[in-house]
Amino acid sequence: MVSDVRARADQDLLHSLTIGDVLRQNARSHPGTIAVVDDNVSLTYPQLDERVNRLANVLRGHGVGTGDRVLWLGQNSSRLYETILAVSKIGAVACPASWQMEPDELAFIIDDAEPRVALWQEAEIGEKVAAVRAGYPRDLVWIQHDGVGAGSYEGALAAAAADDLEEFVDKDAPLLLMYTSAFDGRPNGALISGLGMILHSLVVAMQGVVDERYVYLNCGPMYRLGVLWSTVATLLTGGTNVFVPRADATLICEAIQRHRCTAALLLEPTFSEVVATGKAGGYDLSSFRSPPGNPSWNAMTAPDPAYRPGSSSLYGQTEVTGLITAAAVGVAGAHGRAIPVAQLRIVDDSGVEVGPGEVGEIIARGPTVMIGYFRRPELNAHRQRDAWHHTNDLGRREADGSITFLGSKGRIIKSGIENLYPAEIEAVLRRHPGVADAAVIGVPDAGSGGQVVKAIVVAAGPAPTGEELVDHCATLLARYKVPRDVVFVADLPRTGSAIDYDVLDRAHGGGGYPGSPLFAKLTGL
Amino acid sequence: MVSDVRARADQDLLHSLTIGDVLRQNARSHPGTIAVVDDNVSLTYPQLDERVNRLANVLRGHGVGTGDRVLWLGQNSSRLYETILAVSKIGAVACPASWQMEPDELAFIIDDAEPRVALWQEAEIGEKVAAVRAGYPRDLVWIQHDGVGAGSYEGALAAAAADDLEEFVDKDAPLLLMYTSAFDGRPNGALISGLGMILHSLVVAMQGVVDERYVYLNCGPMYRLGVLWSTVATLLTGGTNVFVPRADATLICEAIQRHRCTAALLLEPTFSEVVATGKAGGYDLSSFRSPPGNPSWNAMTAPDPAYRPGSSSLYGQTEVTGLITAAAVGVAGAHGRAIPVAQLRIVDDSGVEVGPGEVGEIIARGPTVMIGYFRRPELNAHRQRDAWHHTNDLGRREADGSITFLGSKGRIIKSGIENLYPAEIEAVLRRHPGVADAAVIGVPDAGSGGQVVKAIVVAAGPAPTGEELVDHCATLLARYKVPRDVVFVADLPRTGSAIDYDVLDRAHGGGGYPGSPLFAKLTGL
Repeated sequence: MVSDVRARADQDLLHSLTIGDVLRQNARSHPGTIAVVDDNVSLTYPQLDERVNRLANVLRGHGVGTGDRVLWLGQNSSRLYETILAVSKIGAVACPASWQMEPDELAFIIDDAEPRVALWQEAEIGEKVAAVRAGYPRDLVWIQHDGVGAGSYEGALAAAAADDLEEFVDKDAPLLLMYTSAFDGRPNGALISGLGMILHSLVVAMQGVVDERYVYLNCGPMYRLGVLWSTVATLLTGGTNVFVPRADATLICEAIQRHRCTAALLLEPTFSEVVATGKAGGYDLSSFRSPPGNPSWNAMTAPDPAYRPGSSSLYGQTEVTGLITAAAVGVAGAHGRAIPVAQLRIVDDSGVEVGPGEVGEIIARGPTVMIGYFRRPELNAHRQRDAWHHTNDLGRREADGSITFLGSKGRIIKSGIENLYPAEIEAVLRRHPGVADAAVIGVPDAGSGGQVVKAIVVAAGPAPTGEELVDHCATLLARYKVPRDVVFVADLPRTGSAIDYDVLDRAHGGGGYPGSPLFAKLTGL
Repeated sequence: MVSDVRARADQDLLHSLTIGDVLRQNARSHPGTIAVVDDNVSLTYPQLDERVNRLANVLRGHGVGTGDRVLWLGQNSSRLYETILAVSKIGAVACPASWQMEPDELAFIIDDAEPRVALWQEAEIGEKVAAVRAGYPRDLVWIQHDGVGAGSYEGALAAAAADDLEEFVDKDAPLLLMYTSAFDGRPNGALISGLGMILHSLVVAMQGVVDERYVYLNCGPMYRLGVLWSTVATLLTGGTNVFVPRADATLICEAIQRHRCTAALLLEPTFSEVVATGKAGGYDLSSFRSPPGNPSWNAMTAPDPAYRPGSSSLYGQTEVTGLITAAAVGVAGAHGRAIPVAQLRIVDDSGVEVGPGEVGEIIARGPTVMIGYFRRPELNAHRQRDAWHHTNDLGRREADGSITFLGSKGRIIKSGIENLYPAEIEAVLRRHPGVADAAVIGVPDAGSGGQVVKAIVVAAGPAPTGEELVDHCATLLARYKVPRDVVFVADLPRTGSAIDYDVLDRAHGGGGYPGSPLFAKLTGL
């Protein structure tokens, strides 16, 4: 019936909405605003837009087309932000990998994501990248983002055209490939759409904490949506994004003081280090708008005008672009209500919705739900059955419609912002010739408020030492996944063929598994 | 490259986002919240959802399918809100026509929109509807929304199934058909997509004025987006929508007092009437959150916590779902900056962007831009050339990136919330046998702060009286379009073939054309 108007609103430029479009408009609407600060670099929105255009042309010159992946192997940087914006302008997909991964883990990501271009970093992780790169004599294009000269990121940008390609990019197409924790023993890449990212960040901004005066410090890991959602919310409101390479207390205090940052994701143990460093160093952190918490911190920072008591608890996961329940005041559920752009139900194992007060799996629907896991048809068929995303998390709807998240259906261990899945760590332990069987549990960690990993091992033949097994894990796993302790036992307790983790917890001090407010301590919202 | 995941995120239920979905979720998330109040009817979100399901089944039973139009010929009502939600659930299109139109105008809309179902009202406009209906012996289904018994809206709902059809509805498909003023001599219907409506209302909520405690009084005309954007923003945040049939001061004061309304669109002359009525009647209006204005009003109402000085000026039009620039504080432009989901440029007549400080046409792009005018291929080709919506409005980008709206490229007369286009009224005048030529101008109106219409007429043969011409117009045009005064002249001043309106203004007291803050007085934001 609309044959005389454009057939589908999303198939043409007229109705385009990508973060590249938002950048284009910010260059017009906020010509004098500092968009980006990174060490001694500071860029207005028109300057950022021009650099992003140059990068888009560089990537296009390397053959990056619609849906092609661009891998980021580095720490936080304004260049990662530029990369995400540039792929948005050409319909490609950015994959920010964790720089904390070990070579074997990185190699898995490269094999799986099959990027056309890899942007890599020499500082801190150069050796690790070199080790991975040696194994890839393929046509993957490697560009050093923190180098100089012809082959480097800056060299390429200087040589590239500054023209905006102004192509049509489908707002529903994937923008980000975010590798999740290895819940089934290997990492899986969640494809997040451009529209999903924008809607999600609008919802974050709606909570009242983000406006054009926002100066967001990107110090938490940008390979996680819990940081990127604020990066994009800051873009949407025409604010300023500040970057430091990693969550280092001194870097953070210096950046807040120097650039008058108003917000950041500060997790333990970083938060306590920042409080101590801020106090000891006499830093001026008065620009930072914080919900009330630690008294020393309150004294150094400004109160957050958007803060409302009880509004801090959220629930979500990478597969839903971050959060899917949000701040609600005076409700019965510990994690608030579904955000306005998502549907959320609690169902039993046969997919039938359960009533208020009953526990079931949380399922979700809406544009902020991932498109799917990249190259995991069976997993997608399972997780997306009945056209609902199955979170694999347990929750309960309270009588007032709010949600309490109760924990993973599977067991997860929480280390800082990271979800650790026992299966991945146990598989690595079992690769050691001295290990016949292994299980890992989470032990409460007073220092971080989270958990550390403890391994329970059945030795094979001449028993290795615990230290040998820790070293073995450290060569194959990111540091935060490596067991802190190893205990040897004669047998693992089992129920049928499944390890009985409850028995192990009781015997070896396990506990503190997530299920209590998950995102509150992560986001500081 | 995403062949193993669902090919397009927007083509399946998994990523569905319609206002019907929002209602479904609110029934779960806000089971105890009053969603709707209309006179003595009050509905929770689950009750509203059930009634909407029944209406969706009624409409489907009458053969309403994807893209089919459902016409509303009535005043404000919770049933109009239900109609918009029900068409959203079945992928149809709601067309809320102005109940102030005369039979000939209504007949034009029916011929143009070709609805499958018309929901009509007996109260106040029953005779007018009967006159129109008499001319339509077609297969159009007429349902009286304020009647009782088998053929009525309530009768149909009571007899219908309450099942939620749970069909997939494309978020980018049209949801609303909104007839604009007759800028080219006839009204044109702008097709607004469901996603555009949701994004637009999220942006309104982001301004900080809408949250779950919002109780919005729908007293302004619901056939205009300036009201509907708040209706939908209230839905998105899980607030309460209250309905009165029309902008009547006593109805408004009673509703605010009884239902503790927090916001409404109050235009002149209604605003002054509400202030006087509120004072004289001793109404308790303390729930109403208002920006500072009239001292009597300030004394009766509560301050709006989201109000910031200078944040009230907006610019927009029906074709962009309402507003496209929004609140910005301390900027040079009178109407703020582009909203985050839209691109906006200022171009010269050849479509080339002009620099800051230069005047040009405002053009726009993004999902809140209308899909197009219904059944106007030539007009769409013109207004949507180069994949930009051409607003036909003049504006200027200031050096800081903000926008000043300067007026229509064509001449418009502003009567309350309505844009009047001289061409439409002149065409009606020329239909009278005693009129050889005619022009209309706008004369400043102290009472409303807007303009009233004055006709300048060249008589043909035996001259009619001014009163005769006013009566002639009143039978063919809505009341607010009818000339207040008629002046007879020997000839109209012309430049070439075009009427020289500037000369007419100077000779006959014309002035006060819009170009000064347009939406400020309309929205009270």
